[in-house]
Amino acid sequence: MMPFPADRHLHIGAIIFPRIDQFDFTGPFEVLSRIPNSTLHIGWKDTSPVRDVKGLLLTPGQTLATMPPLDVLVVPGGAGQVDLMEDEPVLSFIREQASHAAIVFSVCTGALTVGAAGLLKGVKCTTHWASFDVLEHLGAIPTNQRVVIDGKFVSAAGVSSGIDGALRVAALLRGERAAQEIQLYMEYAPEPPFQSGTPETAPAEIVAAARAGYREITETRIALARRIASNSA
Amino acid sequence: MMPFPADRHLHIGAIIFPRIDQFDFTGPFEVLSRIPNSTLHIGWKDTSPVRDVKGLLLTPGQTLATMPPLDVLVVPGGAGQVDLMEDEPVLSFIREQASHAAIVFSVCTGALTVGAAGLLKGVKCTTHWASFDVLEHLGAIPTNQRVVIDGKFVSAAGVSSGIDGALRVAALLRGERAAQEIQLYMEYAPEPPFQSGTPETAPAEIVAAARAGYREITETRIALARRIASNSA
Repeated sequence: MMPFPADRHLHIGAIIFPRIDQFDFTGPFEVLSRIPNSTLHIGWKDTSPVRDVKGLLLTPGQTLATMPPLDVLVVPGGAGQVDLMEDEPVLSFIREQASHAAIVFSVCTGALTVGAAGLLKGVKCTTHWASFDVLEHLGAIPTNQRVVIDGKFVSAAGVSSGIDGALRVAALLRGERAAQEIQLYMEYAPEPPFQSGTPETAPAEIVAAARAGYREITETRIALARRIASNSA
Repeated sequence: MMPFPADRHLHIGAIIFPRIDQFDFTGPFEVLSRIPNSTLHIGWKDTSPVRDVKGLLLTPGQTLATMPPLDVLVVPGGAGQVDLMEDEPVLSFIREQASHAAIVFSVCTGALTVGAAGLLKGVKCTTHWASFDVLEHLGAIPTNQRVVIDGKFVSAAGVSSGIDGALRVAALLRGERAAQEIQLYMEYAPEPPFQSGTPETAPAEIVAAARAGYREITETRIALARRIASNSA
């Protein structure tokens, strides 16, 4: 896509929900709230604060029902994402906004929510490494990159990859220079102190322990994805 | 320092405040809330939500007065940090907690708040690139690295460097393996899409425009730092 004209005001909207992983949202917020001539909307079913999986309170600015038509829909993930996969009001909201949005941006397991809405069939995308095998059950084309762009769908892998994804989104919306200005403000020149950010690079025993810890929720997600696929077949 | 014994419960506390840069806090939160056998406290003068510089509401869990003695004190920055540099109740809180904490961790311009409390005299530290020249006026030794560790003082440079700093803090507290586990969960293997994260690497015209935009707040910070230094001389 070409960047929008500078004088076109952009509406960007993110869904937050109970047991979100806050960083799936706050990383992209840092970037997307700085896009020139734009408004960032934060919505959920009601305007009560929601608690992230580690306890941080995040407060919606409005309900999903009052969100304007969005140019960019942001769908974060986290453990609580499981409860959205058969939540028809949320899935309907995503479908409706996605029908006219220029970009649908999922972060982490937010991709599974977008997939549960039936939007990722035949679409290349990614998600958190521990949930990567769930994607195919939703009809998506799992693609092992940190950020995947396929048509209007931008997906970032796990948690912190939302920063990289959001900078890509910023460049799509307003051009590379706008994204570079935000990157400089954020001083985003990362220096991870360890090489443990992916299953390919982390110490093997850490990966094995993490996979074991995720087994139950991953199996839940696969079971949900299969049920959703069979219901929509 | 040596990591703490695994059975020693750790108290980590972060200050939030109006016009904080939310990412100075939420980046470290993502890491530090996952340190085994620890509690992360979020405090401000009262428990009303505070609004970050771009509008995100963050809610303190308690007041500064009810914070327990902390093992780690986290001091984020952002535009609103300027108002803390002569706020005696906040500075007293920082001094008192710092007197027994194992680690005082500043992110971005949070270093200027710690410096205003008189704690960085002769200490190597860093801050957001646009405020780097303020440090010397607080008696600190400005050190141009992404994360600087000098004794109990850990300082991270601008905004997103708080992630790298927090992973270093996690390793100091619980050992490298604990930090690596968190890094894998977060899938922190960054791939910035542009090389615009520091004044040394960003396009020159972007750096010049950014410096011009920061001039006023930087001059305010320098004037404050000079006044603080002359008052304490």
